[in-house]
Amino acid sequence: MAKVKLGVIGLGQQGNAYANFLQEGKISNMELGAICDHDPQKRKLAEERYPETPFYENYLDMLESKNVNAIVTCVPHYLHPEMGIEALKRDIHALLEKPAGVYTKQVREINEFAKQKPHLTYAIMFNQRTNKLYQKVKEIIDNGEIGKIRRTNWIITTWWRPQGYYDQGTWRATWDGEGGGVLVNQAPHQIDLIQWICGMPKKVYTKAQYGFQRDIPVEDDVTTIFDYGNGATGVFITCTHDVMGTDRLEILGDKGKIVVDNSKKVNIKRLLKPESEMSATMSMHEVSEILRGDGPGAIYEEEMIEFDSMWGGQHQAVLENFAANILDGTPLIAPGSDGIHGVELANAMHLSSWLNQEVSIPIDEDLYLEELTKRREAERK
Amino acid sequence: MAKVKLGVIGLGQQGNAYANFLQEGKISNMELGAICDHDPQKRKLAEERYPETPFYENYLDMLESKNVNAIVTCVPHYLHPEMGIEALKRDIHALLEKPAGVYTKQVREINEFAKQKPHLTYAIMFNQRTNKLYQKVKEIIDNGEIGKIRRTNWIITTWWRPQGYYDQGTWRATWDGEGGGVLVNQAPHQIDLIQWICGMPKKVYTKAQYGFQRDIPVEDDVTTIFDYGNGATGVFITCTHDVMGTDRLEILGDKGKIVVDNSKKVNIKRLLKPESEMSATMSMHEVSEILRGDGPGAIYEEEMIEFDSMWGGQHQAVLENFAANILDGTPLIAPGSDGIHGVELANAMHLSSWLNQEVSIPIDEDLYLEELTKRREAERK
Repeated sequence: MAKVKLGVIGLGQQGNAYANFLQEGKISNMELGAICDHDPQKRKLAEERYPETPFYENYLDMLESKNVNAIVTCVPHYLHPEMGIEALKRDIHALLEKPAGVYTKQVREINEFAKQKPHLTYAIMFNQRTNKLYQKVKEIIDNGEIGKIRRTNWIITTWWRPQGYYDQGTWRATWDGEGGGVLVNQAPHQIDLIQWICGMPKKVYTKAQYGFQRDIPVEDDVTTIFDYGNGATGVFITCTHDVMGTDRLEILGDKGKIVVDNSKKVNIKRLLKPESEMSATMSMHEVSEILRGDGPGAIYEEEMIEFDSMWGGQHQAVLENFAANILDGTPLIAPGSDGIHGVELANAMHLSSWLNQEVSIPIDEDLYLEELTKRREAERK
Repeated sequence: MAKVKLGVIGLGQQGNAYANFLQEGKISNMELGAICDHDPQKRKLAEERYPETPFYENYLDMLESKNVNAIVTCVPHYLHPEMGIEALKRDIHALLEKPAGVYTKQVREINEFAKQKPHLTYAIMFNQRTNKLYQKVKEIIDNGEIGKIRRTNWIITTWWRPQGYYDQGTWRATWDGEGGGVLVNQAPHQIDLIQWICGMPKKVYTKAQYGFQRDIPVEDDVTTIFDYGNGATGVFITCTHDVMGTDRLEILGDKGKIVVDNSKKVNIKRLLKPESEMSATMSMHEVSEILRGDGPGAIYEEEMIEFDSMWGGQHQAVLENFAANILDGTPLIAPGSDGIHGVELANAMHLSSWLNQEVSIPIDEDLYLEELTKRREAERK
């Protein structure tokens, strides 16, 4: 069977990891076609590690080389959409690293362009979507097993990064280099998952702290309230300064509750009767018994599922799925067009924090870009 | 030894409970002096249950009767301050039920008045402050054991109340009868505790749902973000429609973390080095080890303390402490003047939700009262 020939753009940590997977034959339907990096110093590294693989300093040269029929963009976030478009233009399949971009305007552009190339595969590296645990949680919600969602709550502060991490590169954690902090670099996984599982909120209010515990101009601490527009609400909390990080997701529905701890254990409570029915029919006597903790017997069934951690395998699974979609149309785990939701949510959080007011989704894209540009320009001075 | 003679104002559920404690001799330094209730129907109940105890329909008559030298106000929240003032005026000690009142203006009035009567005991029924668990948590924070607070987070949704609860009385869960919903009736315990333990925030943003899952005009669902003014933030979530209620308090500090589950289990992590020092000194190699989960050995010591539930005893402990302060100056667990903080915090939450914007503390009291009055008047029509 023919294999997809992948061009890796950017030989940093992530690019290296993917090149390695391919070189070691870990992706059955894909091989390493070429590598490119605009930093000439990386040529030596590539020649040592991947001596059989052509190296390019300009990604456009690689796209023209016929050595690849797909690419993955392991480059700063601002560049993902434009590189994706250049690939698609040349009938080359594109896998974008997350986030799909820094602002929705640029992501919309590649989404629109990709629509004109329906024969090409356009995907995004949402590796957490391959996590069986979150697939299970999504399935429970989609099946209506806990009813209509009333409240979501994710405390995801396991993204600890010390100052030394930020000091590795001048582009890191800057407005001009990354377009933000924890919201664009670390938390996009969970920002995608929460909207994938529970849907997009209609309004967002965010309190963000910029350079709170790290010497960076961007946010290292974020608290957000979601308003789903139907009375349901949510909270999303993330930061990079909690070395004892918490990862706890709670979803309350009319018919049950899901609590996920450490992305490992899922506790599911399924009410025997919907809560609204309990509320409407329960006598004060029964209520007193419940309030005293005496009964009235079980009101829910409880299930606990434990999952193995499979961090390493997730990226391989997305690469494999991307190639399978190219080769035989296997449905994508994460279509590229899905990437805009997480970007929009992160943009809404930034914008709300900057304006110190609740913002509606879709956000005012021009206003967002204007505010972001101000911060990029201030940084360059 | 002389005992304090308590006058119970209001013979509802709470008033009955206190009268019972006293009649059964459960409070060593206090006896039941008199009972009053403006509802003449309650006279029969009082005569049956407390045949030895004088009953009054007008609380002012009771205050003048010489049968009591202290009172407790088991009446709708709006009345607490004014009844407290009438007692203090007559040199009668006053224990207010929580909340101290509905709006800060009226609570400030009794606080100011009480200052002119320093020989009298003025206290508030914050029974949860007698909870050994929260005393321990406060002690850990006050001792600086987890360092400076960075984040607080309390999900307290164990206040489930079915529709039948609200339908018991027309005053329940109305603006005119109670001045709010879960924020003034159920959650004041935790609203007091969070500020008692972690201090008052400087700003508050609240998203509240009014009559979301219950047929009531007031809030049954609240999500709040605290801004402590120094970069530290907090989240406070409560509702009355989660029959599988969550009670989880997390406090992150520079030197550790406390997680309290179900007001029963306290998990304390104490970092060996402050997080800011770890961030400043850790090499990228050590960081990679941590990120891979391989080490670098222990970074904190963990302690787990489990407490027995002692719900019943809490109110007795506050009554006993109130009487002890009267008799021998034993320090109060909850001075009356402390009650204003919880009221101010609840007022700030309401006001923020009504204006849909962040509000500063101290709040604009006149604006709050104006907005509350609007809602009371609309309800009367």
